[in-house]
Amino acid sequence: MLKNDPLEQWDRENFLHPSTHLADFARGNVAQRIVTGGEGSHIVDRNGNRFLDGFAGLYCVNVGYGRQEIAEAIAAQARELSYYHAYVGHGTEASVTLAKMIMDRAPDHMSKVYFGLGGSDANETNVKLVWYMNNILGRPEKKKIISRKRGYHGSGLMTGSLTGLPMWHKHFDLPLPQVLHTEAPYYYQRPREAMTEREFTAYLVSELEQMIEREGAETIAAFWAEPVLGTGGIIMPPEGYWPAIQEVLEKHDILLVADEVVTGFGRLGTMFGSEHYGMKPDLMTIAKGLTSAYAPLSGSIVSEKVWKVLEEAADLTGALGHGWTYSAHPIGAAAGVANLRLIDELDLVGNAGRVGAYLKTRMTEALGDYPNVGEVRGEGMLCAVELTADRSTRAAPDPADKVTAKVVGHMMQNGVIARAMPHAEVVGFAPPFCLTEAEADELVEKTAAAVRAVFGG
Amino acid sequence: MLKNDPLEQWDRENFLHPSTHLADFARGNVAQRIVTGGEGSHIVDRNGNRFLDGFAGLYCVNVGYGRQEIAEAIAAQARELSYYHAYVGHGTEASVTLAKMIMDRAPDHMSKVYFGLGGSDANETNVKLVWYMNNILGRPEKKKIISRKRGYHGSGLMTGSLTGLPMWHKHFDLPLPQVLHTEAPYYYQRPREAMTEREFTAYLVSELEQMIEREGAETIAAFWAEPVLGTGGIIMPPEGYWPAIQEVLEKHDILLVADEVVTGFGRLGTMFGSEHYGMKPDLMTIAKGLTSAYAPLSGSIVSEKVWKVLEEAADLTGALGHGWTYSAHPIGAAAGVANLRLIDELDLVGNAGRVGAYLKTRMTEALGDYPNVGEVRGEGMLCAVELTADRSTRAAPDPADKVTAKVVGHMMQNGVIARAMPHAEVVGFAPPFCLTEAEADELVEKTAAAVRAVFGG
Ligand SMILES: Cc1ncc(COP(=O)(O)O)c(C=O)c1O
Ligand SMILES: Cc1ncc(COP(=O)(O)O)c(C=O)c1O
Repeated sequence: MLKNDPLEQWDRENFLHPSTHLADFARGNVAQRIVTGGEGSHIVDRNGNRFLDGFAGLYCVNVGYGRQEIAEAIAAQARELSYYHAYVGHGTEASVTLAKMIMDRAPDHMSKVYFGLGGSDANETNVKLVWYMNNILGRPEKKKIISRKRGYHGSGLMTGSLTGLPMWHKHFDLPLPQVLHTEAPYYYQRPREAMTEREFTAYLVSELEQMIEREGAETIAAFWAEPVLGTGGIIMPPEGYWPAIQEVLEKHDILLVADEVVTGFGRLGTMFGSEHYGMKPDLMTIAKGLTSAYAPLSGSIVSEKVWKVLEEAADLTGALGHGWTYSAHPIGAAAGVANLRLIDELDLVGNAGRVGAYLKTRMTEALGDYPNVGEVRGEGMLCAVELTADRSTRAAPDPADKVTAKVVGHMMQNGVIARAMPHAEVVGFAPPFCLTEAEADELVEKTAAAVRAVFGG
Repeated sequence: MLKNDPLEQWDRENFLHPSTHLADFARGNVAQRIVTGGEGSHIVDRNGNRFLDGFAGLYCVNVGYGRQEIAEAIAAQARELSYYHAYVGHGTEASVTLAKMIMDRAPDHMSKVYFGLGGSDANETNVKLVWYMNNILGRPEKKKIISRKRGYHGSGLMTGSLTGLPMWHKHFDLPLPQVLHTEAPYYYQRPREAMTEREFTAYLVSELEQMIEREGAETIAAFWAEPVLGTGGIIMPPEGYWPAIQEVLEKHDILLVADEVVTGFGRLGTMFGSEHYGMKPDLMTIAKGLTSAYAPLSGSIVSEKVWKVLEEAADLTGALGHGWTYSAHPIGAAAGVANLRLIDELDLVGNAGRVGAYLKTRMTEALGDYPNVGEVRGEGMLCAVELTADRSTRAAPDPADKVTAKVVGHMMQNGVIARAMPHAEVVGFAPPFCLTEAEADELVEKTAAAVRAVFGG
């Protein structure tokens, strides 16, 4: 710390950080970083270090840091009215306007949006709506949810269950019994080397169909998925995946819930991942990009089909037994309105597509043939470098070597943030949409330098 | 609507409001109110109506509306840095400072705070920590949670299960099987008229002990409770309740989780409800009063005893598999710091105690002997008027008459907001702490007028 105050000590003594080795942090063995500012694709910490943030926070600061238009919208809302609740038909100009703006952008068959705080609670709301819906439709046994290995849907008891990664399950008694996990669409780790993408898709479809058969379609309510797997490794679906999966779901009357927390509002270079891949979800979950994280706000979007059941349900059961105190919080709503306007004005969705494609091309040129890189993949403003012990066999590096952590650590030393994806040997990128080509070049150069430094080539 | 824009229509078409009759709202049969501003204990809507808010939003705008000190803190944070995450040891000056301020105010035996968004997710975090803890301690079967009928702990699948009110269970397949509900400490509805408060406490303790016996103490992890029941009816515990309950919990090694979402930061005229009633919780849940709702932020506070296990766990299992993208959000943290400072500077905790006592006294004078008022009760800045068909028998009014809704509706017509508590015939008050005696008088006068108008006396 440069400054002569006890912040560092306060932090170690009082603050339970998420996803942190708590004991090591308290003892001072995990680095501490107090972030003080940001501008565009960069952040600055209290010691004056500046970083190019190749992960946009946690893939959420989509418009980049320091946007004064959003700050001023938040400030104005705070001065006028920081809070009133949204229960029993209450709202604010910002929350009503934002509801309209979201539905204007959502696929045509979607109907209405419920506002939450973060991605986890928005998924939780959607689980509640799915169960409620099937109770109203008189099929109380149709409740199980199929999500995917390597899916990430949050950190709560139910949403952590939907998540298909061991770190969120172990020692927490998860997943809950209502959740099943089918295979991840991870072509790089396909079961047989010779499989084409199409064959791999057929394999995934058959795995899903077998699961449905085994459990009984009459017990399965929904299929929960990110259009592109995010935290599970930044993994794009193989050719033909979404149409084939949707066909199975339709056949068995299983709802499709698209978790668009990462992909929503432009990350793939299109407004939604659903649009990008021709998905027709029954429910959608949004968060991060809705406000570019300037203030917490999330949403659960229901389709016309789901809305019809909710309408019928209300006449049967009365007011919905669901609500958060901070649903549709005015500060989040004001941030959301300003954020979506800015995205349009600056054509940031277009930029995400263009500079994202540039980043992928340049990363492939720099590392595509490197002996310890198994694959470079990307879609829109998402990119991943898969590390390997041996390119020809795609063998995973020895976990004890911690190569991914080392690569990311080396990059950090050189002023660039990437993310070592959990349960994978993947260096992940999800930069702000305002990334310039020069900044993309810097990301690529420093990644290549780090890979070379760690593998010694 | 005064203004000539389509906000009203946008609202009905696009916005799924929490706790609302969705069909009636969409059809235009539930009133719509777009709130635009507030000052002190008052809010103003888009049509120029002004209301004295006797419920402080949803008992959360504790410092009152329009506090420019908090608005400016939010604005300054938004301009500097709206977001960075708190994962893996990251923080901001505001979040670290707030962690310290919270722990300075929490009971001495508490150790650290994890930041969430709302009360529901903070309770969810605490459930995860309790289960995690018992897994680490090698007692994986000790997982059930006892909460109380009429408790309110949130609206998620687990937190809605902890909640002991039918509206949050019906049609949602809740409560989950891990949750049991023991009797509510609702002296007004004691099983036998002649029981003293002490006798009623003994009855509640014996009910709890029988439940523990039946289930086996080795299967029960925690007891979850608000110091004062809030949403379940604004119900203070009977004499001797907390010491007696705690004795049982200690005997069976059952953790006590104090849900201080309503009571935390001064509502009872003391910093925490735990302090007020001599509770020694193992975990605490905080939200609302932490920021006075100016921005979403909540917290899960762990005691030294729980921390010791988390420390051991980290050495065993590594980084905690838990986190929300918006944990310790800078905007919420800045709001929290400014809010807690303001509470101290203006002695709002003291004012909550003083004016709260005044409100209760005046309400009792006005309505204590009214034939259709069974009881007036209050503690700090919480007050409740229990309606009855007949004061001598305390018989509940016929639900079909909707007397509570009518009383609250009459008050609203007269510019005063109170809350018809769900599953009860109780008019609830939880005003901002800055309430003046004159405003308390107005609340009382308009309540009395409404009761007389509805019951015709
Ligand atoms: C796809 C997806 N869904 C849900 C979540 C959970 O969101 P939150 O962390 O805001 O609860 C995340 C967070 O990374 C996510 O990536
Ligand atoms: C005691 C208590 N706990 C938890 C909650 C849930 O908080 P939230 O609505 O912010 O999720 C509430 C909300 O009223 C509450 O009163």
